[in-house]
Amino acid sequence: MKKSRKQTIVFKNAPKIIGNYTIVGQKEGNSNFKNYFDYVLKNDLFGEKTFENAERKMLEHAIWNALDNAHLDSKDLDLLISGDLLNQIISSSFAARQFDVTYLGLYGACSTMAETLAVGSAFIDGNYFSKVACATGSHFSSAERQYRFPLELGNQRPPVSQWTVTGAGCTILGDSGGDKEIVNATFGKVTDFGINDVNNMGAAMAPAAMSTLIAHFEDTKTTPEDYDLILTGDLGKLGSEILMDLMENKGYKLKENYKDCGQMIFNNNQKSYQGGSGAGCSAVILNSYVMQKMKEGVYSRVLFAATGALLSTTSSQQGNTIPGICHAVEIRNCADKKEKK
Amino acid sequence: MKKSRKQTIVFKNAPKIIGNYTIVGQKEGNSNFKNYFDYVLKNDLFGEKTFENAERKMLEHAIWNALDNAHLDSKDLDLLISGDLLNQIISSSFAARQFDVTYLGLYGACSTMAETLAVGSAFIDGNYFSKVACATGSHFSSAERQYRFPLELGNQRPPVSQWTVTGAGCTILGDSGGDKEIVNATFGKVTDFGINDVNNMGAAMAPAAMSTLIAHFEDTKTTPEDYDLILTGDLGKLGSEILMDLMENKGYKLKENYKDCGQMIFNNNQKSYQGGSGAGCSAVILNSYVMQKMKEGVYSRVLFAATGALLSTTSSQQGNTIPGICHAVEIRNCADKKEKK
Repeated sequence: MKKSRKQTIVFKNAPKIIGNYTIVGQKEGNSNFKNYFDYVLKNDLFGEKTFENAERKMLEHAIWNALDNAHLDSKDLDLLISGDLLNQIISSSFAARQFDVTYLGLYGACSTMAETLAVGSAFIDGNYFSKVACATGSHFSSAERQYRFPLELGNQRPPVSQWTVTGAGCTILGDSGGDKEIVNATFGKVTDFGINDVNNMGAAMAPAAMSTLIAHFEDTKTTPEDYDLILTGDLGKLGSEILMDLMENKGYKLKENYKDCGQMIFNNNQKSYQGGSGAGCSAVILNSYVMQKMKEGVYSRVLFAATGALLSTTSSQQGNTIPGICHAVEIRNCADKKEKK
Repeated sequence: MKKSRKQTIVFKNAPKIIGNYTIVGQKEGNSNFKNYFDYVLKNDLFGEKTFENAERKMLEHAIWNALDNAHLDSKDLDLLISGDLLNQIISSSFAARQFDVTYLGLYGACSTMAETLAVGSAFIDGNYFSKVACATGSHFSSAERQYRFPLELGNQRPPVSQWTVTGAGCTILGDSGGDKEIVNATFGKVTDFGINDVNNMGAAMAPAAMSTLIAHFEDTKTTPEDYDLILTGDLGKLGSEILMDLMENKGYKLKENYKDCGQMIFNNNQKSYQGGSGAGCSAVILNSYVMQKMKEGVYSRVLFAATGALLSTTSSQQGNTIPGICHAVEIRNCADKKEKK
């Protein structure tokens, strides 16, 4: 690997994706992707007393079942990498208690799914571990009351707002097996264009997505046309349009092969305004729909670029703007890898 | 490297420590280590309007000056790895805005300094990057009002409480240069012994420290006697005693070569009860006193095991216990490495 100030690291022994699992809430279970999710909650509390505990339980459920999907036992797991949106990432830390495994907590807001895959891939490619679980999730009700208002207040949602996805996704990475692999990862830089509307995350995150996508294309000497799918995390309808404009100004035209998980997840009857958001949004689309379509051969080269808004209620209340970040991983069907090179 | 379920990863090309810097508050500036810190704040607000902004500014100051100490410019930096105790690690994310560099956000509570060093070392040893900045910090006033009570309330502090250190530390890791290196890292498992007193973090974290220390000794086939210094993060006086008891029950006797940053940082006249705590506690002791003593040859083989309590105010208010974690890195003087083997 050439060492430089490139943001992209290339994996010599590309880590394989050997297991996936997704669990979602009721609303997501009625979305455009209802047939792709593994498990739909009958009740958003998932049998727990609080939404925070339900979020933790979804994460545990996703990790256990992704291991099962990879035909692994938790004893086979070397490392669990996880993060979420709750303060001090308690969903991840408390979920990790259930697994007798080394744990690495990350925080990248809604970019966390890509961040865990990037770090997990490096640990496998670097030959430190052979089986790594990468997981994240979010819950509409726990996020609303932490970041915005208690649901009981019944606040109106502004038109630029997005709907935090209730769901968790887990990817199991291995040093062998599986028909998909992660060939490289592009780490993002924190980008801040001065947006301070906490209801307009898409606008805050779009510049970060642009920064990471361009870094990826330059580092790997590729163009958007080289990918069957370029998938951002949760820019939403407005945010994706902003990204397409920003990219076009930089000479990169994003066409039909560009999609955004937040923009696509809910159907128009679901009153989610700009679409879905949250760490769980890209996690459940990647680990269900994208994996399925890659298996079917519809997609064979995918650039997964999850986006995160790095604010807190305190930073916003103190008048700070909203910095964004975007981490990306390139996923390929092993078979198609060579001919696509 | 042999792949196994070991918690310890060994670095073939041990990353070098090529720069350090510490900045602390007034109270820390009057502590037992006042002569070791690089910069002492005259005012805990550090010229900012809020304590949260002061915490962010300390982190920026530590990173800039650690780069300077390593004779590097931010242009030479490949990756910044950082985390802190504030919700959504805003101090780290907002500090990262100031550096045109890829950023990886981690959360390990007060174990974050060791967590950043472990991950940063893997990225350098794995040959992905050549210069990585690892930083963390904490601020008494921002931590008190986020985790406990507004200072204005003037609540009494219980005898088992610790004092969050106001300070930030940064270590610059490189693939060459420097006279100290990180030879291995032991990732911790989340451990929960059912402690639910948010004022008694030491007791909550001690079992995690025991778990990681024993894993390290077993993985590396060493004993406590092999180290000149075994340094835990912020167990405090009570927590360190609990750890020594727990270790003795497991057949490992921690003697004079065992110290705890929280237990040692403040002198008895500073009314800090069990001692210091916070992500900044172990960060400022490691990057000042420990580095200095290694330079002087007083220590040549150090096991740095930072401890974290993975709670949030929400998890505690909902009646959950406090899980703990401990990540460790072994640091050696390059020269003494062979003879000590």
